Amino acid sequence: MDFAARIDTAITRAIHQGQARPSPAKLASALHYTVTPGGARIRPSILMSVAAACGDRTPDLTNAAAAALELIHCASLVHDDLPCFDDADTRRGKPAVHKAFGEPLAVLTGDSLIVMAFEVLARAAVHDPAQAVQLMLILGNRTGMPNGICAGQGWESETEVDLRAYHRAKTGALFMAATQMGAVAAGEDAEPWEELGARIGEAFQVADDLRDALYDEETLGKPVGQDDLHGRPNAVTEFGIEGAIGHMREILTGAIASIPKCPGEAMLAKLVTAQAEVLTPIKWRASQQMTPGE
Amino acid sequence: MDFAARIDTAITRAIHQGQARPSPAKLASALHYTVTPGGARIRPSILMSVAAACGDRTPDLTNAAAAALELIHCASLVHDDLPCFDDADTRRGKPAVHKAFGEPLAVLTGDSLIVMAFEVLARAAVHDPAQAVQLMLILGNRTGMPNGICAGQGWESETEVDLRAYHRAKTGALFMAATQMGAVAAGEDAEPWEELGARIGEAFQVADDLRDALYDEETLGKPVGQDDLHGRPNAVTEFGIEGAIGHMREILTGAIASIPKCPGEAMLAKLVTAQAEVLTPIKWRASQQMTPGE
Repeated sequence: MDFAARIDTAITRAIHQGQARPSPAKLASALHYTVTPGGARIRPSILMSVAAACGDRTPDLTNAAAAALELIHCASLVHDDLPCFDDADTRRGKPAVHKAFGEPLAVLTGDSLIVMAFEVLARAAVHDPAQAVQLMLILGNRTGMPNGICAGQGWESETEVDLRAYHRAKTGALFMAATQMGAVAAGEDAEPWEELGARIGEAFQVADDLRDALYDEETLGKPVGQDDLHGRPNAVTEFGIEGAIGHMREILTGAIASIPKCPGEAMLAKLVTAQAEVLTPIKWRASQQMTPGE
Repeated sequence: MDFAARIDTAITRAIHQGQARPSPAKLASALHYTVTPGGARIRPSILMSVAAACGDRTPDLTNAAAAALELIHCASLVHDDLPCFDDADTRRGKPAVHKAFGEPLAVLTGDSLIVMAFEVLARAAVHDPAQAVQLMLILGNRTGMPNGICAGQGWESETEVDLRAYHRAKTGALFMAATQMGAVAAGEDAEPWEELGARIGEAFQVADDLRDALYDEETLGKPVGQDDLHGRPNAVTEFGIEGAIGHMREILTGAIASIPKCPGEAMLAKLVTAQAEVLTPIKWRASQQMTPGE
């Protein structure tokens, strides 16, 4: 089974358990609506790639880790779209959850998905309790306070912002979770995999800034110009468009250099290089030659 | 150390770890604001009582379980008070979190506390991984979908409500978590302890209905008349005040009868009897003789 199929199967199974009857029908529907159709499933795909590069010795644990990570990511999107945050009408090309189901169910959908993520890992403890517990610790650290995406969002309510802590928590956290959870699910240490995740996260932040500056809402499937609107720091504002693309490539070169020794090291390097292509806005690809990794 | 001190120490330690720097200061403050000063800490106290009745063989695990349960309860209060749910201005006699810190930080406070609850249990796995995982499974089941407090709140968005499922999830879930987690933390099976939790939960629901009908906002520390306002089912509306008090006593008599055989069985029965006194509104206590357990 390829990565995408493994991820979807694991997520579908988790959602299905959350919908067991009797359960409130609308909230049950909202859970399904939030996770399907999936976006690019980038974070769980990175997790699976790292696990594969490390030998993927406990695939059931890898599947659970990937599902848990994506459930947390989906939960964060639902809550970030709420009127009190981005007040976004659309997400992944369809109405945001609070638009489709109302605000109370959007809050509960996010809450339920957070809980579900930890339940998935707790159930996977039958395969290896110690590794499952470590996966929970990493996921908790990268989700909550003081280092996780909750903290990242929390920084946006501060007047004095620690920019490094903000970016690491807001965008970097779930990418660091992806590489570290992939390694742990395969029985490896988490620590050496932090830098790869951090750097991929930085590259995605720049790519996101580029998309936010260049694309329209229809192409993007969500509102654009949000950074300007909310006064958030943005690489395009700082470096210009070409400067931001160059910056992103440098980051990915560093990402490749940081990959720990493992059987799938070359495969991972190739994958990161391919991401540079995917992340460069389409209209720039033709005019510029890709040189990440040089 | 008595139960209250053990609970407060465990909660304070968890919040302190969530506030490690660098972290966004307002969200860090909101976490502390939400859990202190605590309310009656009823659920973790029940958890500790059950653990004690079963021998409390792993007190560190009991402390973690109690903290995790109370963190989830506090998270649910913060989210339930949001404008899109109860829109409550006050809680425990002070401004609700969204009034004191704004709505974005209230959403993030709830999210962070949910994550923190599972982190506390994951960290406690060093004492006994298998028991910690089982505690997480119980807490997840009683918090999320389809059986937990999220589901309970979700039922309020339905036009056709399964009343039994609604009450079990909305009020009963965290009491069932309390008795079951107490037993598991002490190395006992969870299943025989479900009924005690369910019945205590029912009694508290009736007591809550009585308080909602009888007290003013100042005495209660939160808005009153919320059930009428939101059209929620209420034992006082159904049975009248005296009928509701009688009903509550019957439930607690059943609760005592359901206590599984354990070294502290008599102590637990006494504790449940004492709760009946506490739960009866003050103005009724003088005029009526308490006869629970008869």
